[in-house]
Amino acid sequence: MTTEQLVAQIRKKKSFLSIGLDIDLNKIPPHLLQEEDPIFSFNKAIIDATHHLCIAYKPNTAFYEAYGIKGWKALEKTIKYINQKHPEIFTIADAKRGDIGNTSTMYAKAFFEDLAFDSVTVAPYMGKDSVEPFLAFENKHTILLALTSNPGAFDFQTKTVDGQEVYKQVLVTSKTWKNSENLMYVVGATKAEYLAEIRQIIPDSFLLVPGVGAQGGNLQDVCKYGMNKNIGLLINSSRGIIYASNKEDFAEAAAEKAKELQLAMADILV
Amino acid sequence: MTTEQLVAQIRKKKSFLSIGLDIDLNKIPPHLLQEEDPIFSFNKAIIDATHHLCIAYKPNTAFYEAYGIKGWKALEKTIKYINQKHPEIFTIADAKRGDIGNTSTMYAKAFFEDLAFDSVTVAPYMGKDSVEPFLAFENKHTILLALTSNPGAFDFQTKTVDGQEVYKQVLVTSKTWKNSENLMYVVGATKAEYLAEIRQIIPDSFLLVPGVGAQGGNLQDVCKYGMNKNIGLLINSSRGIIYASNKEDFAEAAAEKAKELQLAMADILV
Repeated sequence: MTTEQLVAQIRKKKSFLSIGLDIDLNKIPPHLLQEEDPIFSFNKAIIDATHHLCIAYKPNTAFYEAYGIKGWKALEKTIKYINQKHPEIFTIADAKRGDIGNTSTMYAKAFFEDLAFDSVTVAPYMGKDSVEPFLAFENKHTILLALTSNPGAFDFQTKTVDGQEVYKQVLVTSKTWKNSENLMYVVGATKAEYLAEIRQIIPDSFLLVPGVGAQGGNLQDVCKYGMNKNIGLLINSSRGIIYASNKEDFAEAAAEKAKELQLAMADILV
Repeated sequence: MTTEQLVAQIRKKKSFLSIGLDIDLNKIPPHLLQEEDPIFSFNKAIIDATHHLCIAYKPNTAFYEAYGIKGWKALEKTIKYINQKHPEIFTIADAKRGDIGNTSTMYAKAFFEDLAFDSVTVAPYMGKDSVEPFLAFENKHTILLALTSNPGAFDFQTKTVDGQEVYKQVLVTSKTWKNSENLMYVVGATKAEYLAEIRQIIPDSFLLVPGVGAQGGNLQDVCKYGMNKNIGLLINSSRGIIYASNKEDFAEAAAEKAKELQLAMADILV
C-alpha cells in the first residue's frame, strides 16, 4: 500500500485508528477455547466487527510465537483474512526485528513476501545495514522504534549524545538512509510533549503511536503536537478495544470502544 | 543449563565453538531439496557430523521465519533433535527480540518454554522492562546485544553518552537489572581491541562472539582480550562451517572446518 492510499483511507473513514491484535488465550472469551483455532476465531470476529472503524490492524508477533506452530498458523490465517476481505486495511507486523544485512533481508521476506504485511516494526540498535534491507521493498513500510511508550525508554533512548537524545539521533540518522521515504516511526503517546520536537526533525513521516488507552496517552494532546498535513498519525489501541468484554458480546464491545475512538478522531479531522 | 554446566562442557570438549544454523535454501546442497524437509535434513546432518566439536548451536530465527510455517516447523524439529540427542549442547535462539514487559514475557515463553532453548538474543533499545522478563527464567540465559559485528554498529552503539559509549552504557546499566546473573552479551569479533575495555565492566559474563571467520575476526586476538577464568567466550561461526561444501560431502566438509577451529581452541585452552 502506498502512503497516498493510506492517507485516502484515513480521510474516507475519518479514522486513524490501528487495532492491536495481541491475543492472549487467558484473556479471550472462554467459550472460544473450544473452537479449532481460538486465536483466529477471536481475530475474525474482532475484524468483522471493527474493520469499518479502523484503518490498520497490528498483530504483535510475540503473542503468536508464544503458541508455537499453532500461533504462527493463526497469524498467517489472520493476515490472509484481512488481505482478502479488507485489502484497503493497512497491516502492521509488530515484530521489532533487526539483524545484520543479509539476515534482515530474510526477516523482510518473511513479513513482506511470505505473510504479505504492508509494514513491519524494526529496532534501530544495529544501525543502517540492519534497516536498509527492509527499506528496499517497494510500497512496504518500515516502522522504526524511536521513542517507545514503556518505562525502559528512559534507560537508553532519552540519554543525550553530543547534545541530542539517542532517539533523536535515530530520527536524524535514519533520514539519510537509502529509501528513507519508506520509513515511519514508533513514538509512544505517554510523551506527547516530545511530539512537537520530533515533528521538527521528521515533519512528513507517519508516526505509529501506541499507548493511547491502556498505557495512558491522551488523544487530543497527541494530535495537537503530532498531526501533520497528511494526518501523519496511526494511533494504536490493543487491550482497551479487544478485551472490552470477555463474554459472548466481546466483538460488539470491541466495536463500541473502537467507535468511541473513531468518533473522537472524526471530531479532530473536521 | 547452568553456567557451571556450560563451563564443564567447554573444558571437557576443549571447545567453545558455537555453530550458526542459518539455513538458506539457495545455499544448501541441491540434492537435499528433494527431501520432505530440506532444512531439517541439512541441520540433522550438520549436527550429526559436528556435535562433538562444538558446545553450542545457534539457529538465527530469520532464516526459518522467511519460509513461513514450513520454516518454523523445521526450527522446532531442529531444537527438539538437539535437546533429545545431545542435551549437553547449549542452544541459542538468535532472535534479537525485545518489547514492552508483558510482550517480552510472551517471547520468553516462546523460546524458553515452547521451543526449550537454553538462551535467546535480545536487543537492549527498549531498556530494563523489555529485558527483565527474559531474565526471570531460571537456568535460562539472555544474550543482550552490546557491540555487534556489522558496519551499522557505529551508527548508534559507539556514540558517546556522558563520556561513555552507548554499548558500554548497556553493559553498565544491565548489570543493575534483576537476575542480571542470567545475562550474557553479544560482542562482535571485528573489534577485538574493545574486548579489554568490555572485560573491565563485565569481567565474569559470557560473551557470544560472532564474526570469527566470514566476518573477519581473529580467534587469537579475541581470546587474548576476551577470555576470563571461566573461559567466558562462545565463538560463533555460521557460513564458514555449514557452507564449506554444497555437494554430497557437505557434512564432512563442515566437520573439517569445525575441527580446525576446535583444535585452535584446544591449543588456547591448554
